[in-house]
Amino acid sequence: MRSAELTTKLRDMSSTPAASHRIGIVLFDDVEELDAVGPWEVLAHWTGTFAQDGYTVTCLSPNGQAVTAAKGLVIGAHAALEDTPMLDVLLHPGGLGTRRLLRDPAYLDWIRAQRRSVTLMTSVCTGALVYAAAGLLHDRPATTHWSAVNELRALDPTVRIAEHQRWVDDGDIVTSAGVSAGIDMALHLVDRLAGRDRAREVRRGIQYDPNPPI
Amino acid sequence: MRSAELTTKLRDMSSTPAASHRIGIVLFDDVEELDAVGPWEVLAHWTGTFAQDGYTVTCLSPNGQAVTAAKGLVIGAHAALEDTPMLDVLLHPGGLGTRRLLRDPAYLDWIRAQRRSVTLMTSVCTGALVYAAAGLLHDRPATTHWSAVNELRALDPTVRIAEHQRWVDDGDIVTSAGVSAGIDMALHLVDRLAGRDRAREVRRGIQYDPNPPI
Repeated sequence: MRSAELTTKLRDMSSTPAASHRIGIVLFDDVEELDAVGPWEVLAHWTGTFAQDGYTVTCLSPNGQAVTAAKGLVIGAHAALEDTPMLDVLLHPGGLGTRRLLRDPAYLDWIRAQRRSVTLMTSVCTGALVYAAAGLLHDRPATTHWSAVNELRALDPTVRIAEHQRWVDDGDIVTSAGVSAGIDMALHLVDRLAGRDRAREVRRGIQYDPNPPI
Repeated sequence: MRSAELTTKLRDMSSTPAASHRIGIVLFDDVEELDAVGPWEVLAHWTGTFAQDGYTVTCLSPNGQAVTAAKGLVIGAHAALEDTPMLDVLLHPGGLGTRRLLRDPAYLDWIRAQRRSVTLMTSVCTGALVYAAAGLLHDRPATTHWSAVNELRALDPTVRIAEHQRWVDDGDIVTSAGVSAGIDMALHLVDRLAGRDRAREVRRGIQYDPNPPI
């Protein structure tokens, strides 16, 4: 079973002495694909290439099963939320599926419990709506997808929305703008957690010299 | 079974009269995650939002099963290569797994067969190595990941390598630089297949205003 092999491999990786810090990316049905996989590429490139930095990254889903993302791609998880060991960094993507999570008290409780133990809570796109619904963004600066600014304001009018920032680093919470902004935010995380040179190496590895044609 | 439901859904989508053009993204073990999912996000956003343009996009794998990508993410396929109906556009990502494909005569035969029927063959990153090994890039301009330029040259010294271009559109073959370049190339495809306004709408949808922090 390929995914079982993978789980074992990831467990082996994370049991090496260097890998003492854990990053978890939350997956759920109707997660926006690039919200999750953009940061995954950046972070997995970093942690896989530079094990000496002591970080690992895994994908988590509510029951540990694969999810069907918003555009129809099926993405596997490496573990279930409840089996997740203590995380240092949590990354919450957005996507249409966040709207169900906003109305799920047990899920918001899980987010609040993470808030108490996780050093750095990060979000991409409408992941910020979930954080707002859980009360994490009260009276704090944050951003989200441009089309979700009003939703964010309605969830918590005290959020100081920085609509035109690519990401907002407010210390223990980092939020980013929509979809592709997660790539920039993840590179900022590498910069913050492992230094500028490392972030530059990762950027070069994924040849991130963006040049939108239109 | 979620993936079966999805296959049905995609089949339903593609049987609507408008959807007469098919785009296929090839997945394989050790495909680089963002090589595939960057273009998927762009193309699935386009085809899902603007069904009237008459395109669909699906992910294909050798046996139709999920693959384990280069950084350890499991990604599902919607169909097997052999069950794929005639494609209009094929998109071949790169990743370490391409090196096995280069030495797989049956796979290279499949690529050459596609070449005979597919209007537009496109690649991301080291997907170009597979095209070169199949003889598709003979005496043509192309690009690949910066680190694979020598490999590409060794596979076919006649390829005119445009190392510093983000993508190379040579009519019926479009190749792109490494990993993240697939996003730019896919936006170029939307521009080419559906026009500049459409490509701009997709760019805005995924909030693609890249701003690398380092």
